[in-house]
Amino acid sequence: MYEGVVQDLIDELGRLPGVGPKSAQRIAFHILQNDPEDVKRLADVLIEVKEKVKFCSICFNVSEDAQCRICRDPRRDPTVLCCVEEYKDVVAIERTREFKGRYHVLGGAISPIDGIGPEQLHVRELMMRLADGTVTEVILATDPNLEGEATATYLTRMLKPLGLRVTRLASGLPVGGDLEYADEVTLGRAFAGRRAADDAGS
Amino acid sequence: MYEGVVQDLIDELGRLPGVGPKSAQRIAFHILQNDPEDVKRLADVLIEVKEKVKFCSICFNVSEDAQCRICRDPRRDPTVLCCVEEYKDVVAIERTREFKGRYHVLGGAISPIDGIGPEQLHVRELMMRLADGTVTEVILATDPNLEGEATATYLTRMLKPLGLRVTRLASGLPVGGDLEYADEVTLGRAFAGRRAADDAGS
Repeated sequence: MYEGVVQDLIDELGRLPGVGPKSAQRIAFHILQNDPEDVKRLADVLIEVKEKVKFCSICFNVSEDAQCRICRDPRRDPTVLCCVEEYKDVVAIERTREFKGRYHVLGGAISPIDGIGPEQLHVRELMMRLADGTVTEVILATDPNLEGEATATYLTRMLKPLGLRVTRLASGLPVGGDLEYADEVTLGRAFAGRRAADDAGS
Repeated sequence: MYEGVVQDLIDELGRLPGVGPKSAQRIAFHILQNDPEDVKRLADVLIEVKEKVKFCSICFNVSEDAQCRICRDPRRDPTVLCCVEEYKDVVAIERTREFKGRYHVLGGAISPIDGIGPEQLHVRELMMRLADGTVTEVILATDPNLEGEATATYLTRMLKPLGLRVTRLASGLPVGGDLEYADEVTLGRAFAGRRAADDAGS
């Protein structure tokens, strides 16, 4: 329906996650009317990101060097290791400024439906990192959903025999949320994980 | 928060219409994990579209040549001219296969709030196209909203003195829609524009 290359652009844009046919069209029309310089900048950064961005050889975090900023940072506690599913989880946790240890990015979660088992994740590399005994606590910070829980359960079973402290992030009410809108599972976990009211001054 | 070039990519993606910060992040992570070939193809088509796609010198439709496919097509009726706001409207009308005339893409609609007056649209070029008397009917197919109606009203006033037939697309109930969900204005127009029941066999 569209002139050849315009249709090509719509097709390519439509392959991006969360971009349906209508959005792809809208973005394509925007690009047609846009300043060529702006479009060039987007095209360049797409190429650049694929050329420059690699994955850290230690923790599989995104990195422009062989090792990521966090693995290179001597101030980060090497005894605490936080296992996450994806790079974006590292960013989310870093944003809290609460965690001073290091990371291990699994590259996903166990999901039999999608054909993802432990072999598809960086689990073997995790076990190798733990072999020298530097790490004393592993925090399993996988997503609080079916796949994340399955991954955490699997890893707990693998790690417990090593004599490490294995922990999970707390479940409970989101801060700023309304109790009445919390789902039953969350509310149930918040009860199960209740603490003394003077616990941390809150 | 992100490694330099990843943040650059998120920023550039976030400038696209309908792509919020969260979508930009999701697309960026998809691109990080994507096959470099796929990303290269998207970058290439972005550049190509800006290099190749021009606007038709007659009707301002999108075109890879100096004149668009429709203006070059001798089978298209040169006596009927359909004025639309944007290139995507041409595509929408072509999809109906109902219209055999030619187009004039105004490049937007009159919108005083956005500082768009008739001078910012291809109105002068429209008047020049009509000068030789070939066109006998102008269909004003602007959007059925405030800006589109204002544009149609303005153009009607400009075109009527030329002795042309000036028409608007019919307003009414969308086919396949529910009468009870139609807004009052649409339903009112559907009444005003009612036709004899045996009119076109439907």
